[in-house]
Amino acid sequence: MTLPESVRIVEVGPRDGLQNESAIVAAQTKVAFIRKLAETGLTQIEATSFVHPNAIPQLADADEVMRQLAPVEGVTYSALVPNERGLARAIDAGVRRIAVFTAASDSFARHNINMTVDESLAAFALVVARGRHVGMTVRGYVSTSFVCPYEGDVPKERVREVTQRLLDMGVDEVAISDTIGAAGPTDVFETVGHLLKTIPAGSLALHLHDTYGTALANVLAGLQLGIRTFDAAAGGLGGCPYAPGASGNLATEDLVYMLDRMEIACGVDLAKVLAACEAIAAALSHGLDSKQWRRLKASCDAPPT
Amino acid sequence: MTLPESVRIVEVGPRDGLQNESAIVAAQTKVAFIRKLAETGLTQIEATSFVHPNAIPQLADADEVMRQLAPVEGVTYSALVPNERGLARAIDAGVRRIAVFTAASDSFARHNINMTVDESLAAFALVVARGRHVGMTVRGYVSTSFVCPYEGDVPKERVREVTQRLLDMGVDEVAISDTIGAAGPTDVFETVGHLLKTIPAGSLALHLHDTYGTALANVLAGLQLGIRTFDAAAGGLGGCPYAPGASGNLATEDLVYMLDRMEIACGVDLAKVLAACEAIAAALSHGLDSKQWRRLKASCDAPPT
Repeated sequence: MTLPESVRIVEVGPRDGLQNESAIVAAQTKVAFIRKLAETGLTQIEATSFVHPNAIPQLADADEVMRQLAPVEGVTYSALVPNERGLARAIDAGVRRIAVFTAASDSFARHNINMTVDESLAAFALVVARGRHVGMTVRGYVSTSFVCPYEGDVPKERVREVTQRLLDMGVDEVAISDTIGAAGPTDVFETVGHLLKTIPAGSLALHLHDTYGTALANVLAGLQLGIRTFDAAAGGLGGCPYAPGASGNLATEDLVYMLDRMEIACGVDLAKVLAACEAIAAALSHGLDSKQWRRLKASCDAPPT
Repeated sequence: MTLPESVRIVEVGPRDGLQNESAIVAAQTKVAFIRKLAETGLTQIEATSFVHPNAIPQLADADEVMRQLAPVEGVTYSALVPNERGLARAIDAGVRRIAVFTAASDSFARHNINMTVDESLAAFALVVARGRHVGMTVRGYVSTSFVCPYEGDVPKERVREVTQRLLDMGVDEVAISDTIGAAGPTDVFETVGHLLKTIPAGSLALHLHDTYGTALANVLAGLQLGIRTFDAAAGGLGGCPYAPGASGNLATEDLVYMLDRMEIACGVDLAKVLAACEAIAAALSHGLDSKQWRRLKASCDAPPT
């Protein structure tokens, strides 16, 4: 078995994390959080989303947040863009990398973005083309790539088809997303293994939630398939919109711990991620949900004498 | 890659879980918990430990608990036995399967049982022989099989040697134990892979703690190596004695979820494990720590309409 020697972590806490938190966090707290994340060694940080403020009030301050973020050498701040209006705002805010999001199941797409998958791809084709025309790079998300809360198990060929269509329109990386965190390692082997028959590993990322505790096992499966890009959210931010109180995104610090232990380089300093967590923790309505955070707060790590 | 079609879960919550909880649970609550566990499909339940009551007051009622447990068809209740005095108590209480425990690191063994590993093996040789003489079967634990809190990484050949010596004295199964939950999947591949060069998979179990969130990833590694026996504790009971507030044993219900999702049969009913958790939850000083328990308590599992 061969494993990658190094992987890249895409930090999605400020966007996918905070958009699913009940608390509305002040823009300056978000900026402080993101600045701390930019000191950790993370090179990709999804900072916010230019969705309509009524749809996601948690990220209504996207313009302000992006403008306050001073460039950091080696760090790219990206933002989610749902449509042409969002693209215009992203351009105004100086965003250089955007992300578009569709799903592998029509039921989820309709509930989430009020379009079928086909309709969303048609809409995004324009957004992607215009974004690239002004020099942006574009990431794509395929939600419910394994399990849909409405339809159950999602056919792997459907995931491949949607992924390929995103790549064909000029997206450079597609995040295969376990939106409700229900997948297990065999799902990753099956679905991502199927994708890899026609799509290079370098075009794929795995975006995992930890609702059922399987996220790190799924990372292992992804690593074994040769996947080298993994999304994560500092502090395990995010929750699952379909299970209040449940765990959110895979926690960046827990991912870094496992990668460090496996001697797979990710370039991210675990202690600095926890320092970034400190910047956001007080603004939330609950304690952060990662094993590393809990150990830090337990504060007694030394063996008894 | 081939995975086992079925695995066996050894439930250690009543023993390894409760011995590491700060709360002292009443014997009748333990008995109710164990009876509920016996209804889940679990076939092996480590019910208690015949250590000296001063050493582990949480399990001082071992004799009473064992006596109150009526036999259940297909279920074996085992108990930890540290020495000949403990063995005598176990015999009196009608225990049919015992477990002995040593470590792969001398520093840990000295701190934990006040003996070197060699001394403990010499002591256990007598206990195992006498136990087998009266018809008992015997399980063994090798603590700190991956990482020792005092010595760091533990050499895999040392783990193999201690495991082999336990098998040689008549132990029928050795639980390779990640006592502080620090191992990652590569540790499992390395150490357990090394053991499997000379020891059959059927003689080994993996005993994982979830301190760092890697337990299910480590299960996947074990499954890929052909390991078919995994320890777990309902409710993720236990904590880590070296990190107060940290997670405990791998939670039985989270393990069952992943196995179910992987279509690997374990014969255990997830809902019934959660029912068993209900029997113990109120007696503890903190909420139970498993993803399944949190989803249950969040109680809103349906997608929004």
